[in-house]
Amino acid sequence: MNRHLVRYVLGWVLIVIGAMLILPVIVAFIYGEKDYMYFGAIAAVCLTAGLISSRFKPKNTQMYVKEGYISCALTWVLLSVIGCLPFYISGQIPSFTDALFESVSGFTTTGATILGVNVRIEELSHSMLFWRSFTNWAGGMGILVFMLAVISQLSGQSNMYLMKAESPGPVVSKLIPKLRGTAGVLYAIYGAMTLIEFLMLALGGMPIFDAITISFSTAGTGGFSIKDAGVIAYEGHYYWQAVMTAFMFLFAVNFSVYYLIITRKFRQAFKLEELRWYFVIFVAAVSVITIDLTLNGYYPNMFDRLHHTAFQVATYISSTGLASADFDMWPAVSKSVLMVVALIGACAGSTGGGLKVSRAIVLVKSTARDLRKILHPNSVYTVKMDGKTVKEDVVSSINTYFILYIFIMVISVFLLSFDEKMDFTTDFTAVIATFNNMGPGLAKVGPTQSYFDYSAFSKYVLIFDMLAGRLEILPVLMLFNRNCWRTK
Amino acid sequence: MNRHLVRYVLGWVLIVIGAMLILPVIVAFIYGEKDYMYFGAIAAVCLTAGLISSRFKPKNTQMYVKEGYISCALTWVLLSVIGCLPFYISGQIPSFTDALFESVSGFTTTGATILGVNVRIEELSHSMLFWRSFTNWAGGMGILVFMLAVISQLSGQSNMYLMKAESPGPVVSKLIPKLRGTAGVLYAIYGAMTLIEFLMLALGGMPIFDAITISFSTAGTGGFSIKDAGVIAYEGHYYWQAVMTAFMFLFAVNFSVYYLIITRKFRQAFKLEELRWYFVIFVAAVSVITIDLTLNGYYPNMFDRLHHTAFQVATYISSTGLASADFDMWPAVSKSVLMVVALIGACAGSTGGGLKVSRAIVLVKSTARDLRKILHPNSVYTVKMDGKTVKEDVVSSINTYFILYIFIMVISVFLLSFDEKMDFTTDFTAVIATFNNMGPGLAKVGPTQSYFDYSAFSKYVLIFDMLAGRLEILPVLMLFNRNCWRTK
Repeated sequence: MNRHLVRYVLGWVLIVIGAMLILPVIVAFIYGEKDYMYFGAIAAVCLTAGLISSRFKPKNTQMYVKEGYISCALTWVLLSVIGCLPFYISGQIPSFTDALFESVSGFTTTGATILGVNVRIEELSHSMLFWRSFTNWAGGMGILVFMLAVISQLSGQSNMYLMKAESPGPVVSKLIPKLRGTAGVLYAIYGAMTLIEFLMLALGGMPIFDAITISFSTAGTGGFSIKDAGVIAYEGHYYWQAVMTAFMFLFAVNFSVYYLIITRKFRQAFKLEELRWYFVIFVAAVSVITIDLTLNGYYPNMFDRLHHTAFQVATYISSTGLASADFDMWPAVSKSVLMVVALIGACAGSTGGGLKVSRAIVLVKSTARDLRKILHPNSVYTVKMDGKTVKEDVVSSINTYFILYIFIMVISVFLLSFDEKMDFTTDFTAVIATFNNMGPGLAKVGPTQSYFDYSAFSKYVLIFDMLAGRLEILPVLMLFNRNCWRTK
Repeated sequence: MNRHLVRYVLGWVLIVIGAMLILPVIVAFIYGEKDYMYFGAIAAVCLTAGLISSRFKPKNTQMYVKEGYISCALTWVLLSVIGCLPFYISGQIPSFTDALFESVSGFTTTGATILGVNVRIEELSHSMLFWRSFTNWAGGMGILVFMLAVISQLSGQSNMYLMKAESPGPVVSKLIPKLRGTAGVLYAIYGAMTLIEFLMLALGGMPIFDAITISFSTAGTGGFSIKDAGVIAYEGHYYWQAVMTAFMFLFAVNFSVYYLIITRKFRQAFKLEELRWYFVIFVAAVSVITIDLTLNGYYPNMFDRLHHTAFQVATYISSTGLASADFDMWPAVSKSVLMVVALIGACAGSTGGGLKVSRAIVLVKSTARDLRKILHPNSVYTVKMDGKTVKEDVVSSINTYFILYIFIMVISVFLLSFDEKMDFTTDFTAVIATFNNMGPGLAKVGPTQSYFDYSAFSKYVLIFDMLAGRLEILPVLMLFNRNCWRTK
């Protein structure tokens, strides 16, 4: 591994973190909070270290798979560790593990929280709340770039460059040739959509601070809110909740759809198989849950049922994790549908988590293909997506991904079971909720509960799951591979 | 599909069922029960129908994949439906669904029971209890032949013959060239081991009827017992329980090991990778659970702890499902270890269920291989087993199998969630327990509970799972494939 290159990349990451930390400094000044000291000091250290490190450019800047994965994983680790310092140093979250959990949950856009029991969310200062929600937004932004890198790998290219991915492959479809340009377009779309959501909320009468933080956490499909009660605190504000529903749905759409729309390629955009299935899954889930709620006599009228169902399905499919209702109290079928939706997850190339709709499509198609092959062993079948043949190594890498995905879930549930305080439903849904970067699970980690009661050991397991889920497993596994660290 | 051939095969199956039904007639005479009528009448009908059907030999007796899978699946369906009639017609199990559940559970060697709530197990007549346990034994015997057929498919041969499988492939290793001969050897080993177990139990003072039925259900790794309390009824009888532990362990070993031992190829036998891992998993699970029980202060002494742990691990790894203790009361770690052991399951080529140790080995190895490939895209890595390269299509078929395995589990848990009476832990472990042909799960389907409370719909879902799990998924799926039924 080219360690100098990784050091150089991380130097730039430090500069970015330093720059980001200036925002809460401003917020602290506005609200007259003394927390500006913490944010300012950490920002200064980051900027200094980052500027020094980035001055020494390595001779060889060619980035191969190893360097790409390791830089990526270390970027998120660095973001998380530095991101947790304001919470910890200010004493607003007294335990380091808890502060780290919250920070990882933020940058991985998970939205699982340890707040609400020991420390109430409302007890945090405005600047801390701002920073906490901002991590959701920054995490989502980071993921958009990361996706391009990972997806170029998926397309079967042997040389993957983190910074020069040329073909976004079969999943995101080709945006524009150069990543720098592509990233620019993605950020513009991301920023513009966040701004529109903020304006729609603020003009709808939502307090400005709430509108900013909610926009951050829905854009990143993170799900942090600034109230203990989450979105349930906005009960009765149908318009606000409807805006959030719409934007959670939209941020989980493959961003290349927006690019195609901007460039007026409407037909191409709406022809994308992933988009269609995403839509079908959404509508199907809303229908089944609405019927289930009706049959079980939940909510006084159909409008309320549809409203809350659409919100909850949007929050689960996009892996945001905000709740407009305590769905842990919903009937069993509805809960199961939500869990299945969460497992499938959002579209690839979005800020959402989960397995991803396109992977699910390829998995189902390739499994059907393999079954057909058994009946007709001498025939040749290929897996098609958007009318084009998916390369066999892409199919096989998706199979491998799914197997790893299941392995990690089983091992995680197993490790959590050491925590005698919790029960099986809690452990199982906690793993689904963190690994798919969703946030709340069911039972003791349900939407009105908190992850606080887990032991430190369990919290680190969940931290691993959040990182592994967000970075699509491989980069995080590479951190534990001795070969990767060898300098030739 | 060659329907005549399938009809012909099922004719022979009817003859076999008819012959088997004569055994409970004898038992009924011995105990002076009037149930001989039911068994006798059903036997007569089966034998008549079977003899007629088998007289008309089809012109084309070549058996291809379709016919093999369909015959196989229909054989188990036929066994189950006819097997349930004595329970139902005699009125001893008043509901048809319940009788069918019990019969499917028997022939698939699952051992999940609906008895104990509405009807107590002890209320059944001796002949019914005998028949119930005998289905476990017959199911195990059927599976041994089935394995050879399926495994020849796994080895990548394009023409699979149900009756002429020539190469048992990479999993069972080559026994002897012809299936007829191989089946004979397998049956001899199976019969001899059952007899030895029976003698060891009977000579150890166990009542003869108990010894016969327990031998049947451990040999098939089924797990039906003739007491409501299961093996807990033999509390304090350490010798009996130890014999059961040993035989549950032995019946879950790949039968080719015994063949190699008989032919004095000891070195080859103990070199088999699957056997070694099976042993490692067993010892590891026993160690972890014993430590966990010790730390949590279960049982007065180490001997009791080891005794019960070994029994429970043997019952789970072999998918038998007999319980010498109510392990649902055990600490969480122990329960998790048991669940993981159950998921991995027994050795291929044994009567046990689950994913199978050899499949797990290939899955882990191929996933590790794929990860290495990502780091070194131009290198070639192969998956090895017993020192030999596993063919790529075998690796890919095992991946497909695992994906299907997970799909079916997720869909089943989802369908069970419609049953509002149960909770998530119950549904989840019920699916694991039936799909892996183990028997009892946790919570409301724990070892001292029953499947009776599930709705009829849920019971049919579980019946599907038992059949799909036992026949390694594919044959059962083929039943639902329209193409398979077409007569060219």
